[in-house]
Amino acid sequence: MSRAKGNLAVGQSGGPTVAINSSLCGVIREALAQDDIGEIYGMFRGMRGLLKDQFIDLRRQSAQVIEGLRHTPGAVLGTARYKVTPNDYERILEVLKARNIRYLHYIGGNDSADTSWRLHQLASDAGYELHVIAVPKTVDNDLWATDHCPGYPSAARFVAMALRDTGRDTEAMGPESPVKAVEIMGRNAGWLTAAAALAREEEGDAPHLVYVPERPVSVDQLTADVRRCYEEREYVVIAISEGAQEAPGKTLGEEYAPREIDTFGHRMKGGVSDYVATLLSGKLGFKVRIDKPNYLQRSMMICASPVDLEEAYRVGQQAVKEAAAGRIEGMVSLVRDPGRQYHCSLGLVSLAEIANREKMLPAEFMNEAGNFPTEAFLSYARPLIGEPWPPYVRLAKYFV
Amino acid sequence: MSRAKGNLAVGQSGGPTVAINSSLCGVIREALAQDDIGEIYGMFRGMRGLLKDQFIDLRRQSAQVIEGLRHTPGAVLGTARYKVTPNDYERILEVLKARNIRYLHYIGGNDSADTSWRLHQLASDAGYELHVIAVPKTVDNDLWATDHCPGYPSAARFVAMALRDTGRDTEAMGPESPVKAVEIMGRNAGWLTAAAALAREEEGDAPHLVYVPERPVSVDQLTADVRRCYEEREYVVIAISEGAQEAPGKTLGEEYAPREIDTFGHRMKGGVSDYVATLLSGKLGFKVRIDKPNYLQRSMMICASPVDLEEAYRVGQQAVKEAAAGRIEGMVSLVRDPGRQYHCSLGLVSLAEIANREKMLPAEFMNEAGNFPTEAFLSYARPLIGEPWPPYVRLAKYFV
Repeated sequence: MSRAKGNLAVGQSGGPTVAINSSLCGVIREALAQDDIGEIYGMFRGMRGLLKDQFIDLRRQSAQVIEGLRHTPGAVLGTARYKVTPNDYERILEVLKARNIRYLHYIGGNDSADTSWRLHQLASDAGYELHVIAVPKTVDNDLWATDHCPGYPSAARFVAMALRDTGRDTEAMGPESPVKAVEIMGRNAGWLTAAAALAREEEGDAPHLVYVPERPVSVDQLTADVRRCYEEREYVVIAISEGAQEAPGKTLGEEYAPREIDTFGHRMKGGVSDYVATLLSGKLGFKVRIDKPNYLQRSMMICASPVDLEEAYRVGQQAVKEAAAGRIEGMVSLVRDPGRQYHCSLGLVSLAEIANREKMLPAEFMNEAGNFPTEAFLSYARPLIGEPWPPYVRLAKYFV
Repeated sequence: MSRAKGNLAVGQSGGPTVAINSSLCGVIREALAQDDIGEIYGMFRGMRGLLKDQFIDLRRQSAQVIEGLRHTPGAVLGTARYKVTPNDYERILEVLKARNIRYLHYIGGNDSADTSWRLHQLASDAGYELHVIAVPKTVDNDLWATDHCPGYPSAARFVAMALRDTGRDTEAMGPESPVKAVEIMGRNAGWLTAAAALAREEEGDAPHLVYVPERPVSVDQLTADVRRCYEEREYVVIAISEGAQEAPGKTLGEEYAPREIDTFGHRMKGGVSDYVATLLSGKLGFKVRIDKPNYLQRSMMICASPVDLEEAYRVGQQAVKEAAAGRIEGMVSLVRDPGRQYHCSLGLVSLAEIANREKMLPAEFMNEAGNFPTEAFLSYARPLIGEPWPPYVRLAKYFV
């Protein structure tokens, strides 16, 4: 290791996904292959680990553990939501210098890109050579300058499968219990909720209505949408973003929720799907059932997209290659190749372009009524979730 | 078909599962193979279909559709929760006679067994020859006189996978957000909630606490349990039955929930996990996260247990064989063979034994503290969920 120019630190940030450990695997494998890189340090719980000088020695991990990262959900280094402030800068530099960390890879979303950008700036200001190449990760899919974010395709596959299957459940119950609302992650951006539309194989399949934060829907429209869908087929399956709104800043159906404060003075939990269930059962008299898979959306490994796990690995690997090649700052991006066969190449974008910006679902990805994704969205998302699943059947309705 | 002794009707009842269509497939295939059976009628939406004389012709379905039933979730005939009363008896007999239905198979749980028992009795009282052989199905696993119920193993596999994966998510978040409560189906019986314990591969793995309705837990004990687990490893994953109680008849934590009635006069939704989250965040100051997979537990086909799909098929098949062999009433049961290699044989039990009884989790399946299933439960449940899944990894904690 005498030829090494310096040591590498890698961290995982924000919400875990099924693919973030695959990215870590890519980082470790590539670091092991680079002669310029000495020690490989894992930041224990993200920036908190760096600030506390708590690092896990990644060179000492067995080959079996490193390989296993490719199909282990969660975030094995431990993650953190920690916003770095100028008060931390001195301590950060101190640790970087003491450990001779010259390569830094933070795997995360918007906030992590911001952190990476600050680390780059503070090293640059201090004249300390540091290569900061971020690795994208977020099920929200809201990072700029990349076709999509690792983690999103697998969460999208979970959501599509969940809607397809709970849709069959609702269809089976029929008029006895005709409305199902599935609450999907993504407080500001509707990418993951829109993925529910991938569940539809034939006209009339669930979901029938998809509501995203980018397109507020009035209580009247929602009610009318549900009534119309019910009249068409006696059951209605709704995919609704946890951030669905009636008007900008106003949660859909919030006024129907209880105002009361609990025993401890906290506002009671209860998401948008609870509000909508109360609203619809009141306005239409329907029994409304709810699914809130919450953290299962980002953790259920059996639903992982093989495309995602592979891309997550490649972006991790590429980050180390870029740093070792001398790039001083950036985030690895996925660039979709033209042509019918899906493939993404890897690019690099400046952190300045990414930090603190959110990419919303573009207008052309939702229909005019704002209640279902368009074919343009489906063409974008379909290749991400991997091979098609085996088709389900329905009985031919030959009544005797 | 001139040799046929009569026609067959089959129906699906109660909550759908991933395996109930596999049972239907077994019924249809066996009926097609029996010379004594003429027409094969599918009751459209269970007993409602019979009462309305709405039947789907199952002889006219394509081989591809019939085969596809083995891996299609939901209930393709449509299901119903309908309690037959003496007022319906005349109409039922009228339809049975008009259609010359001599074989009747109702696929369902306790209520369906009760319905089957009533159908047997009314036919018997009327001197109408009718073979009523029920097919067990319920994710609640609470039917008497059978080792387990088709539908349960697959739901158990979902629950185990969900706890394993959301457990990794919680572990990754650590002290920032250390408590996760997953709400599991089963209002009276804790079978499905107990299946969460199958997620644990190593000591210390999630889940750490499992609460079932059969073992009420006081708020003080719950709080103490969570505090102790947190002190051991800085995160706590709880599997909690939707029917968890503080005392018989008193929902756990209910007093911490809002009392207010919503705009439409309905009591707000919000299950036991919401109460528990409010309670624990108040008492311990922890951030508590919740997963409520609800209907995904019984519908997500990707989590289906292969053992379950196969057994569900066999019990459907067997029901027709028993009826064709002249048995006048009963429910097909699964009888676990002795020996280390898991296998179930098929038996038949009288409907009188099954109807309106619930099989609770036996005392020896929960530990003394009432907060985790025992090894006896795990030995019972493990073979049901099928082949073991690939192991996940953790980093060796070599701190530098």
